[in-house]
Amino acid sequence: MNPLLAAMELGGTKTVVAIGDAEGKVLEEFRYPTTTPEETLGIACAWWRQRGDIDRLGIASFGPIRLDPRAVDYATMLQTPKLAWQGFSFATYFAQHWPSVRFCLDTDVQAALWAEMQRGAARHASEAFYLTIGTGIGAGLACHGRLVQGNLHPEMGHLMVRRHPDDPFAGTCPYHKDCWEGLASGPAIEKRWGQPGHLLPADHPAWDMQAFYLAQGLWAASTMFSPQVMILGGGVSQAHGLREKVVQQLDRMNSRYLESLDHRVKLPALQQNAGIIGALLLASQLAEKA
Amino acid sequence: MNPLLAAMELGGTKTVVAIGDAEGKVLEEFRYPTTTPEETLGIACAWWRQRGDIDRLGIASFGPIRLDPRAVDYATMLQTPKLAWQGFSFATYFAQHWPSVRFCLDTDVQAALWAEMQRGAARHASEAFYLTIGTGIGAGLACHGRLVQGNLHPEMGHLMVRRHPDDPFAGTCPYHKDCWEGLASGPAIEKRWGQPGHLLPADHPAWDMQAFYLAQGLWAASTMFSPQVMILGGGVSQAHGLREKVVQQLDRMNSRYLESLDHRVKLPALQQNAGIIGALLLASQLAEKA
Repeated sequence: MNPLLAAMELGGTKTVVAIGDAEGKVLEEFRYPTTTPEETLGIACAWWRQRGDIDRLGIASFGPIRLDPRAVDYATMLQTPKLAWQGFSFATYFAQHWPSVRFCLDTDVQAALWAEMQRGAARHASEAFYLTIGTGIGAGLACHGRLVQGNLHPEMGHLMVRRHPDDPFAGTCPYHKDCWEGLASGPAIEKRWGQPGHLLPADHPAWDMQAFYLAQGLWAASTMFSPQVMILGGGVSQAHGLREKVVQQLDRMNSRYLESLDHRVKLPALQQNAGIIGALLLASQLAEKA
Repeated sequence: MNPLLAAMELGGTKTVVAIGDAEGKVLEEFRYPTTTPEETLGIACAWWRQRGDIDRLGIASFGPIRLDPRAVDYATMLQTPKLAWQGFSFATYFAQHWPSVRFCLDTDVQAALWAEMQRGAARHASEAFYLTIGTGIGAGLACHGRLVQGNLHPEMGHLMVRRHPDDPFAGTCPYHKDCWEGLASGPAIEKRWGQPGHLLPADHPAWDMQAFYLAQGLWAASTMFSPQVMILGGGVSQAHGLREKVVQQLDRMNSRYLESLDHRVKLPALQQNAGIIGALLLASQLAEKA
């Protein structure tokens, strides 16, 4: 029998915990609201322990978070608007509450990319990019077939983009106002148009503007590291026809400089399950105990 | 005695050929104007052959060029304004004219980055970025300690940037007009201000505008893959005080969201020799013949 692995997708508002196998197959999962670190992790640990003998755990977390294993504050939540989580250390928590477990950690969007690379829309890509639009804009990035963390991890939501000529909206980013995330995240759409994205019809001008902004990020990724696959993830990206509008904008921006990027822009194959599947696949990379 | 390696830095206007060792030490070099492929390569091969028994060659070339070894048109020059080079295949050339040599190939800016990572300003960086401003804007990029080619190779000169509020200049890019390269390359500076960059004094407003544009590219790289080191290479970047202006703009753009990027922005340690040193270091990665 395959050894059981534990996985957690920790979001700003909800948490998913699961058990599964090394191929990323979820055997059982449980969803509940994210509250304080102690309560949220406490519920998770109790749930996992009831499910069997587990010694490996993969975590896909919101950020920013220190991912460099050489850093003294490895696995610590950095400056985040979710104040209860600021400074929270997964390493310290597990050392105190579950010392026998080995865990690995990445951002939610990096885990989602990893799942799509192993089992979804980015199979066989060595360079790949995953974009998620929700309460913010997050990006995951792989080069040479491996996730990239760099000094921190991609923070591409704060890319500076060109403003759409018909867009007077000031932007929502508390740091940069009208950076990418400030103009094109879920809350930005809602504040600009007075309604959340899922209530706006497919022919609403919001979607042309959204495509204009999303295409700029994909264009930046293309010029920077030329990924074979770029995945439009997150709730907002699934709006009807948005992928096609993004590709049109991207082709216009490209202006025949590069080959058309159409076939590289993909919707996720694993939908909303990519994060938790990715967390399982990350856990499976931890060596089995002898 | 160490086996002799050959290197070539093929630029749009001049070519450098060299022999050296596996540590990137140049023992002898020769510079001459780039003309047609047959003439330029012919001079190089004759020069190398006079210098001893050589069986490995590293090439740092202008682009765009097909770098994926799995592609049928590997090592072929793609669409370039230098029409004599369009479609030229290094693979075919060496198969015909020097079948015993093994060569490896990368762009000039990737080779320069590689040299700086091995011997210069980006030692010990696993994620690094090299920017060169000259007749165009080129970028080299490494992740996990290895150069990144992606589907083609970085073409970051064509990033879309925000226009400086005081800049009415239309831009010089034949594809995109006012992309990054269209606004901030050497020819763009010369056309906007009526004089080439090296004639503009250090207190000329051109440099604040240039720093504004350069900082946007470094910011894009930072948000995208968070490199530990970003090198300002190429002639234009060496203007007095420009690095400091770029860092100021970068800190302003950052707006305290990330830690200051000051210590990550570096001038090249190998100056104008990085390309040919990088080509030697690339050649040294080819396995020695048994």
